[in-house]
Amino acid sequence: MLIQVVNPNTTASMTDLIGRSARAAAGPGTAVVAVHPEMGPASIESHYDEALAVPGLLARIAAGEAAGADGHVVACFGDPGLDAARELAAGPVVGIAEASMRTATYLGRTFGVVTTLQRTTGRAWELAGRYGVREQCRTVRAVEIPVLALESDPAARSRIAAECADVVGTDGCDAIVLGCAGMADLAAELTVRIGVPVVDGVAAAVTIVEGLVRLGLSTGKRGEFAAPPPKRYTGALEQFGVGAPVAAPEWEVSR
Amino acid sequence: MLIQVVNPNTTASMTDLIGRSARAAAGPGTAVVAVHPEMGPASIESHYDEALAVPGLLARIAAGEAAGADGHVVACFGDPGLDAARELAAGPVVGIAEASMRTATYLGRTFGVVTTLQRTTGRAWELAGRYGVREQCRTVRAVEIPVLALESDPAARSRIAAECADVVGTDGCDAIVLGCAGMADLAAELTVRIGVPVVDGVAAAVTIVEGLVRLGLSTGKRGEFAAPPPKRYTGALEQFGVGAPVAAPEWEVSR
Amino acid sequence: MLIQVVNPNTTASMTDLIGRSARAAAGPGTAVVAVHPEMGPASIESHYDEALAVPGLLARIAAGEAAGADGHVVACFGDPGLDAARELAAGPVVGIAEASMRTATYLGRTFGVVTTLQRTTGRAWELAGRYGVREQCRTVRAVEIPVLALESDPAARSRIAAECADVVGTDGCDAIVLGCAGMADLAAELTVRIGVPVVDGVAAAVTIVEGLVRLGLSTGKRGEFAAPPPKRYTGALEQFGVGAPVAAPEWEVSR
Amino acid sequence: MLIQVVNPNTTASMTDLIGRSARAAAGPGTAVVAVHPEMGPASIESHYDEALAVPGLLARIAAGEAAGADGHVVACFGDPGLDAARELAAGPVVGIAEASMRTATYLGRTFGVVTTLQRTTGRAWELAGRYGVREQCRTVRAVEIPVLALESDPAARSRIAAECADVVGTDGCDAIVLGCAGMADLAAELTVRIGVPVVDGVAAAVTIVEGLVRLGLSTGKRGEFAAPPPKRYTGALEQFGVGAPVAAPEWEVSR
Amino acid sequence: MLIQVVNPNTTASMTDLIGRSARAAAGPGTAVVAVHPEMGPASIESHYDEALAVPGLLARIAAGEAAGADGHVVACFGDPGLDAARELAAGPVVGIAEASMRTATYLGRTFGVVTTLQRTTGRAWELAGRYGVREQCRTVRAVEIPVLALESDPAARSRIAAECADVVGTDGCDAIVLGCAGMADLAAELTVRIGVPVVDGVAAAVTIVEGLVRLGLSTGKRGEFAAPPPKRYTGALEQFGVGAPVAAPEWEVSR
Amino acid sequence: MLIQVVNPNTTASMTDLIGRSARAAAGPGTAVVAVHPEMGPASIESHYDEALAVPGLLARIAAGEAAGADGHVVACFGDPGLDAARELAAGPVVGIAEASMRTATYLGRTFGVVTTLQRTTGRAWELAGRYGVREQCRTVRAVEIPVLALESDPAARSRIAAECADVVGTDGCDAIVLGCAGMADLAAELTVRIGVPVVDGVAAAVTIVEGLVRLGLSTGKRGEFAAPPPKRYTGALEQFGVGAPVAAPEWEVSR
Repeated sequence: MLIQVVNPNTTASMTDLIGRSARAAAGPGTAVVAVHPEMGPASIESHYDEALAVPGLLARIAAGEAAGADGHVVACFGDPGLDAARELAAGPVVGIAEASMRTATYLGRTFGVVTTLQRTTGRAWELAGRYGVREQCRTVRAVEIPVLALESDPAARSRIAAECADVVGTDGCDAIVLGCAGMADLAAELTVRIGVPVVDGVAAAVTIVEGLVRLGLSTGKRGEFAAPPPKRYTGALEQFGVGAPVAAPEWEVSR
Repeated sequence: MLIQVVNPNTTASMTDLIGRSARAAAGPGTAVVAVHPEMGPASIESHYDEALAVPGLLARIAAGEAAGADGHVVACFGDPGLDAARELAAGPVVGIAEASMRTATYLGRTFGVVTTLQRTTGRAWELAGRYGVREQCRTVRAVEIPVLALESDPAARSRIAAECADVVGTDGCDAIVLGCAGMADLAAELTVRIGVPVVDGVAAAVTIVEGLVRLGLSTGKRGEFAAPPPKRYTGALEQFGVGAPVAAPEWEVSR
Repeated sequence: MLIQVVNPNTTASMTDLIGRSARAAAGPGTAVVAVHPEMGPASIESHYDEALAVPGLLARIAAGEAAGADGHVVACFGDPGLDAARELAAGPVVGIAEASMRTATYLGRTFGVVTTLQRTTGRAWELAGRYGVREQCRTVRAVEIPVLALESDPAARSRIAAECADVVGTDGCDAIVLGCAGMADLAAELTVRIGVPVVDGVAAAVTIVEGLVRLGLSTGKRGEFAAPPPKRYTGALEQFGVGAPVAAPEWEVSR
Repeated sequence: MLIQVVNPNTTASMTDLIGRSARAAAGPGTAVVAVHPEMGPASIESHYDEALAVPGLLARIAAGEAAGADGHVVACFGDPGLDAARELAAGPVVGIAEASMRTATYLGRTFGVVTTLQRTTGRAWELAGRYGVREQCRTVRAVEIPVLALESDPAARSRIAAECADVVGTDGCDAIVLGCAGMADLAAELTVRIGVPVVDGVAAAVTIVEGLVRLGLSTGKRGEFAAPPPKRYTGALEQFGVGAPVAAPEWEVSR
Repeated sequence: MLIQVVNPNTTASMTDLIGRSARAAAGPGTAVVAVHPEMGPASIESHYDEALAVPGLLARIAAGEAAGADGHVVACFGDPGLDAARELAAGPVVGIAEASMRTATYLGRTFGVVTTLQRTTGRAWELAGRYGVREQCRTVRAVEIPVLALESDPAARSRIAAECADVVGTDGCDAIVLGCAGMADLAAELTVRIGVPVVDGVAAAVTIVEGLVRLGLSTGKRGEFAAPPPKRYTGALEQFGVGAPVAAPEWEVSR
Repeated sequence: MLIQVVNPNTTASMTDLIGRSARAAAGPGTAVVAVHPEMGPASIESHYDEALAVPGLLARIAAGEAAGADGHVVACFGDPGLDAARELAAGPVVGIAEASMRTATYLGRTFGVVTTLQRTTGRAWELAGRYGVREQCRTVRAVEIPVLALESDPAARSRIAAECADVVGTDGCDAIVLGCAGMADLAAELTVRIGVPVVDGVAAAVTIVEGLVRLGLSTGKRGEFAAPPPKRYTGALEQFGVGAPVAAPEWEVSR
């Protein structure tokens, strides 16, 4: 089984981090490739960034399908382009926000989200509502560390841990959801340190896609999520490969 | 006052139709320009189309701002790119789905939506939920006429009218919302024919933007909708003008 | 176009203030008349006041219709008598709570309400639920200044401003809704002072009614909001003019 | 214990019917007086009727308090004036819609409402939402018989029974709520005939008020429902007794 | 009329306390018997305790039916076994959480719950949602006193009072619900001391069952709550009396 | 990794069927044991059956923990005893209703449930609400085949298939959830036959538990789901092993 994990931003070091977390989560016999788009923003910290990341993300989904991926993970906590990706792909597509929030519901009654920037918390609340976990999600906290500084800021780890501790101490949550793919490597350590389960969406999404593929389940294709109808596209979008045969990437995967 | 109405697809005849409806709705002293992106799909009939329409739409929003537009309408019933457009623009931005659904709530207790294709009805229900009118929206009907066939199919008008009549007769709705910008010219006629108010989102959104501008109200900019943080962009997206000075279009507007 | 704004209390100075705000919001070519009932409470600060204000309000709606008003605004934040007014009037009727709350939804993700007395906050929350904006409305604050003291209390302005500032600073709201028609003159000043859009319901409602009238939209009359069935009325209510021909007021309107 | 049941319309025969149902529901030692306002509509079949019934209803609540009533029932399925009545009264006040809908929730998972006119069904749905039973309330049916014809129309009884049977047969509801005080005498017969519990709101409300009084519970008076603040009233409303001492009615009650 | 109140734990002194509160709430002519199961936990302070209390509780319901009880109260704030009890009993069955929460909705707009242990507050919130009062229930507080220590801990009374006072002072609630049957004797005293109505679920449930029996209303039996289908049971459960004739207890009731 | 799947009824042939489905869903290296309680009902078709199945189910959870199970599946569509099981177990516990409904949300916008008896559909709707998928769950259908007849009734398969087809044809659902563990062997066949993904909860729950265990995630234990406090138990419940050391079963597992 081959699962493609798409980091929708164009920062290679973050793709590497996501790939490591994804591979650690996959079961025996499951190969994981982590990729990012050829075009788009270096990080996603606004609705604008998100909107401009989607075309490149979708090109990756299409290419991954052509290359034989059995399923896909969209590895950004805003779950950008999820509906469109489900139209494009034959295999299942899962976002890390939906995966982590729903996974948290198996671990207790309530959870809190700890994310990067305050300006992204509105979207987190919106997704909690869309995914039916608005009641379980008791708080969304921001550490005010930009996405790409998660790797470089030496204080990042301790600030995230402090916020997680407060989610448990003040809000009494049973579990924590990490609200950024760039925090994927912190879940195990924080689970021990904080004493409640801490969910990384990348890992959660990989296990869910793996399960769906094993069960032969994928997006229902008889209605809203059927393949997009053929359409005339104009302008620079041709460069997204629209209308052209999609070249399968040459992946080197170690299962 | 200058309002820019952006048709997010690239079909000029539809932009013309939308422009006529928008201008008819605007008050004295308000100029309206109707534009469409330079790139993107000819019509929006899937989540994929919608996703790929957004970059071109956002370029239009940025250009319109540079050209002095006081406010913007996003003229597609999926309200694509709305959050991102609000980050980009200083003036207010209103989508036709939110405008028409909320307008309908002033006209009675319940409304029904009549739209083009069955596969778009899921998004309509989702937006009804997001806009807090899930209870008022009693039905979403599709006439199964593609967006661009609305103009050319001689049976379109009567099929839409028949569906509207059934929304009133069967579901007892107080009002009807037309679920596609391409139906903008039908509202007045249908209001008379069906005997309940029929809302065209383009017209509704124009009057709302006009009101907001007159009252000096625009998107709150101290949190989630502040201008997007500067960011390194990679690849073909540079062609969207990211990072480059935005050229103001030369509009010829008759007020 | 002629819009009637009804202040449901019987205090003339407040009607004047509301009228000034309404006229400032109206577009060119739109005339506004601001009136109040001949009977009823001097201000509305309880459910009891509200209930007893409604008959006089409805008499004004009926008289306004007879005088040729194209639409009506109910200028009290509890939106009293709205459903009944919609049955009576051929033209659209909009309340300032629904108008301001829905207007705020175009300006960001969240808003807070700043109102007069604590005892009215329950109704504000109830209306937020009824209008589908319970999630967007993050806080309702009272300054504990009686309605009629808004004009006379020298500290009113600064206390309202302080509460507005806290709505943004503590709750992080994108916008503010002023929860009393008696605050109508403060919106513009507060928008500048607080740095987020501040919505006055009177102005918001006027622009919405204006838009509806221009689009030829009014309350759907084929079901719940059809004209009330003729009915025998007993007692002092005859003095409300029930059953008698409604005399059109002699309005002097400057368009 | 003395419970006052207020029929908010001015039709004496309906007050009699309501009084009989109320007295049959009251326990030993509880006296019931059934009254109607001195002014107002002969029946309530529109929002307009409801609004104009409220002042007379409130006068009855005030008079009942003065006469020593321990609690009050508002006997119209729209629960008109309930919030204001709670401000006025020291004792508990319960509406028949809230009483019957909440009572139905003890009798199974789902219920349906059978009421008079189609135009009142919107209000029934609204109340179901306000009372938190929107999910349990599966259907609201109208028999299209005017309120006052319930007594005189020989077909009324069988049409109501047929609708009740269909609520069970088609919607599978566990219980039925009668949506008009004028149906109060039908509940027992229908419970037997249809085979599921059929709830009359008048009886339900009487037992609830009786329970509250016995437990020493009444409206919380430290916030929203404190007595209305004193206020200057203008015009014909003085005839409602506002400001004047309320004369206690001379009730003849048989306990 | 005979109402059986079942304390689902096996502590006799708590059954006595519950019985006293229940008898005080019952009207003239209504007899109350308070019982507890022959097997099960001494108190219910976890989901595990609750699950293991249910079989003994259901045996009591069956025995009470055989003994001629007209209705039943389940006297634990988690409302354990309620659905199953409704299947077993011909008469109505009411839980103290549903009874007290719904009773509180007649007393104002909002209420707060004061209960024993923090770990039970999740269930209280869940029940508030299930009973449709999630919006009215503004806070759930725990005094961290174990159920059986309510009788013996000399500080219990003052800690509960302090928490109740804070529910009013800080959260501004109109009413309070006591979240444990073991607090049944405190309601009257606290109502006076705190100045808002304080609802004891045992008393509330007794008056509701009494009202239902008087009105001839009981669980609808044509669908979900029909008697359980006959079934082969295995193992120790035979000792619950499954399949065996249920012996009616010899009750000594003073009406 | 060892996952224990507990069939809460006592029918061995159904445990075998569930075990086969569970083992087929598990990944390489994961062992599955399927067990049922020593006491309880032969099938679960009422709330009464469910309540009496729980003690035996919990004994199995405790025994499985003692025997080294890493996680548990509760294999009945009512998810009985789930909260209590989470208190008892150190490892994760997942019910098949929550697993299948949440899994369906990854496969499209909407799903329908096809289950056995009409009287169980109320619980299915309740669980859909509790799990936040009330909006996605568009229909719950019963084939009126008793649980144990699923194996023996030759028409079962075709009636289930017909109902599934109608869920897609009439309600337009993107996916189907099988509402009984006894249907576990039908999912793959139906997915092909109906043309939309058909989810078996047993398989779905196994893959979710497997993922949780692999990620080191289990129930948060610092609040509501901490181990139950020690407690005195009375009567026949001692036979459930309460207070006694739990004997680990001798499992023969083939990984």
